[in-house]
Amino acid sequence: MEGIGQSAGNPGQLQGILRDHTPGIRLEMLMDLSPEWVVGFVDGEGCFHVSLQAHPEMTAGYQVVPEFVVVQHVRDVQVLHALKRFFRCGVVRLNHEDRWAFRVRRLDNLNQICAFFENHPLKTKKHTDFQKFRTILRLMSEKRHLTRAGLVEIADIALSMNTASRPVLEKVREQLQAG
Amino acid sequence: MEGIGQSAGNPGQLQGILRDHTPGIRLEMLMDLSPEWVVGFVDGEGCFHVSLQAHPEMTAGYQVVPEFVVVQHVRDVQVLHALKRFFRCGVVRLNHEDRWAFRVRRLDNLNQICAFFENHPLKTKKHTDFQKFRTILRLMSEKRHLTRAGLVEIADIALSMNTASRPVLEKVREQLQAG
Repeated sequence: MEGIGQSAGNPGQLQGILRDHTPGIRLEMLMDLSPEWVVGFVDGEGCFHVSLQAHPEMTAGYQVVPEFVVVQHVRDVQVLHALKRFFRCGVVRLNHEDRWAFRVRRLDNLNQICAFFENHPLKTKKHTDFQKFRTILRLMSEKRHLTRAGLVEIADIALSMNTASRPVLEKVREQLQAG
Repeated sequence: MEGIGQSAGNPGQLQGILRDHTPGIRLEMLMDLSPEWVVGFVDGEGCFHVSLQAHPEMTAGYQVVPEFVVVQHVRDVQVLHALKRFFRCGVVRLNHEDRWAFRVRRLDNLNQICAFFENHPLKTKKHTDFQKFRTILRLMSEKRHLTRAGLVEIADIALSMNTASRPVLEKVREQLQAG
């Protein structure tokens, strides 16, 4: 959590240095974000997502993949870069066609993100998804995702979230209980 | 612009009064929004929209309808009420199926909204749409929308914005030029 949202120094000086050394850099890519703006934007555009992916080497055959994602049209890719600088983690990658994503998957980084949103709570119902996401991270830190029972518990929480992966999650949950 | 985003008094006292006099009111409907959160949320979810609607009584046969809209799933309708309280104008209405909208259409209120976003600039490319929207409001204050030439100019600006009304706008623009 330390350092998230803190300025990396004098913005004017930073812009000068980058402008001098990075041909063609667009100054708007260096936009400074405030914590409250980030909360508002993530309330609108952010997603706390958990999927279960088949992974033969894992004890129960599935890997839990939690991620924090913000997707934007390519015209606003500089906002995604600004989020990456703000959170000091994650990657900005092409998502699908003309849409790009800021994506955080590393567990230590996700815990930093959670610490930020604990200190700066979301205002929409996405806050409930965030709380469930945080519970799943806690279960993973307790190694519960390495057991079949723990995976079913995680699948149940993920299914109670606002998710586009419902059909896949339901199928995996069935397989885990049948196995 | 005066008063937008300013607290209406002691929030605890306000909540107490409303709880005592409004059966079943949910306290989360009284969420306090900060200007920066509002900018972030509108960067994600807000829309500056301009349509041209047939109106036989208008000089050139069309009425310009500018509006500021934020649409949410019904689960987050309380955020729309909070925006209405924040901006001290607009209405919250059912939009379509399970989606609700906070909508501002009155010209004096739209000018207040513009003053707010001039003082608290949007960070995404929506800022460009906002600037075009503001230009159209200015043209309207100069009564340019009452002439055919002014309507074509407004249609051109509206067409250069990120709009879902492109086909209708293009058709109206053609009719205006043909007429």
